[in-house]
Amino acid sequence: MNEKKPVILITNDDGITAPGIRALVEAVKDLGHVIVVAPDSPQSGMGHAITIGSPLRLHKVDMFEGVDSWQCSGTPADCVKLAKDKILHTKADLCLSGINHGANNSINVIYSGTMSAAMEAAIEGIPSIGFSLCDFKFDADFTLAKTVVHEMTTRMLAQPMPEHTLLNVNVPVVSAENYKGLKICRQAYAKWEENFDHRVDPRGKDYYWMVGKFLNMDKEPGSDVEALENGYASVVPVKIDFTDMQMKAWLSEQWPDMQ
Amino acid sequence: MNEKKPVILITNDDGITAPGIRALVEAVKDLGHVIVVAPDSPQSGMGHAITIGSPLRLHKVDMFEGVDSWQCSGTPADCVKLAKDKILHTKADLCLSGINHGANNSINVIYSGTMSAAMEAAIEGIPSIGFSLCDFKFDADFTLAKTVVHEMTTRMLAQPMPEHTLLNVNVPVVSAENYKGLKICRQAYAKWEENFDHRVDPRGKDYYWMVGKFLNMDKEPGSDVEALENGYASVVPVKIDFTDMQMKAWLSEQWPDMQ
Repeated sequence: MNEKKPVILITNDDGITAPGIRALVEAVKDLGHVIVVAPDSPQSGMGHAITIGSPLRLHKVDMFEGVDSWQCSGTPADCVKLAKDKILHTKADLCLSGINHGANNSINVIYSGTMSAAMEAAIEGIPSIGFSLCDFKFDADFTLAKTVVHEMTTRMLAQPMPEHTLLNVNVPVVSAENYKGLKICRQAYAKWEENFDHRVDPRGKDYYWMVGKFLNMDKEPGSDVEALENGYASVVPVKIDFTDMQMKAWLSEQWPDMQ
Repeated sequence: MNEKKPVILITNDDGITAPGIRALVEAVKDLGHVIVVAPDSPQSGMGHAITIGSPLRLHKVDMFEGVDSWQCSGTPADCVKLAKDKILHTKADLCLSGINHGANNSINVIYSGTMSAAMEAAIEGIPSIGFSLCDFKFDADFTLAKTVVHEMTTRMLAQPMPEHTLLNVNVPVVSAENYKGLKICRQAYAKWEENFDHRVDPRGKDYYWMVGKFLNMDKEPGSDVEALENGYASVVPVKIDFTDMQMKAWLSEQWPDMQ
């Protein structure tokens, strides 16, 4: 019974001091050997940014009882790359990112630092999950989210997964009684409609704040937005090959000389 | 013969002063009404980052003869969002991003600011192309790239495209005689293998520089890496729905209770 514990790498995009990453660590501490490498400051909306033009700092910190933790000056994707090269001396069995303060369902997957960290691990062949709670508040209640994290992580460790597995899990803001369970979904067809708030600074110069409104244009069943609206936690498998194969076939018909 | 000129929005991630964006403007100036909105500083590796926690600046500049141009303090994706809300008073017919100094083929699509700007436009329903030359040097020779840009832009304007069309075009570093033409491809299966260069600063503190090596793991024909190696410019259609439908079906079999 001397079974080796699975190595679980944890990161996020809200920074190492965010309540969301603390909830994530607490939720899975009993499931494996947890190692945290997370940004030293909030990185929301960083997408898949990486730091190539400036150096990175990495410091061991004492943040979570009994858990080896490092903070890094880079982006979520940088954290995973640095963890792989300088901290983990074995391949992690699982990478968990989050729990994000705010939804990363549908089109948010492309703007999300939480998901980019998970994607970076998936590219490395480490099965990964990005977790997000549909509540952007700093003092959000992570109780239900921790239950979801524990169940998904247990399932992932029990089931051998394909090499580049990457899941986007979003947790609705509902009471425990109204929570319906996990649901496998597809990314909803949606976008952000931005209006920039135009202001003038104390020196008389113009500046702009981004203000967005989420537009769900999806009318078909099976989307993550629909699942969340109905009290489910949505689970969307994400691809790291972005090729649009349908469009590729169509283009080949339009432009046969380009085949 | 009073035909309305198509509106072409141009942006990039190397910044408005980069030779690559100048080459792009020159290549398509005769094909439409060109408007430039580009970052005021280099943004390489910014992925799909957006600026939500700080304000943005936007200034009209006189950079390209006869072309209305703005520089923006934000990311490539911010530039497209701001252009849509504050500058274009009509929907652009086409968005072109680049010409990037350096390859954005295969897995680079997820780290690329060039492609994220094009993706942002595609989400908005503006057919888009990201152009990259496989030469990262500031003084790279854009002669062949300009020919490729002119041909692809002419084709895109002549052919009604699906609503969210997004193409990733990479140009090889070959002489005009050895250039084989445009080729429709899929994203190669590849990744970056990072080793961080560990150094010590003048105050005795550790820091790290990201140093990456590109690993092509693709053994099948039809990839963008293969096309570029053989002297073609690669054209990969890119999806904005990242759902892995194959994995979704597989997961539904493994976890039937999550359907």
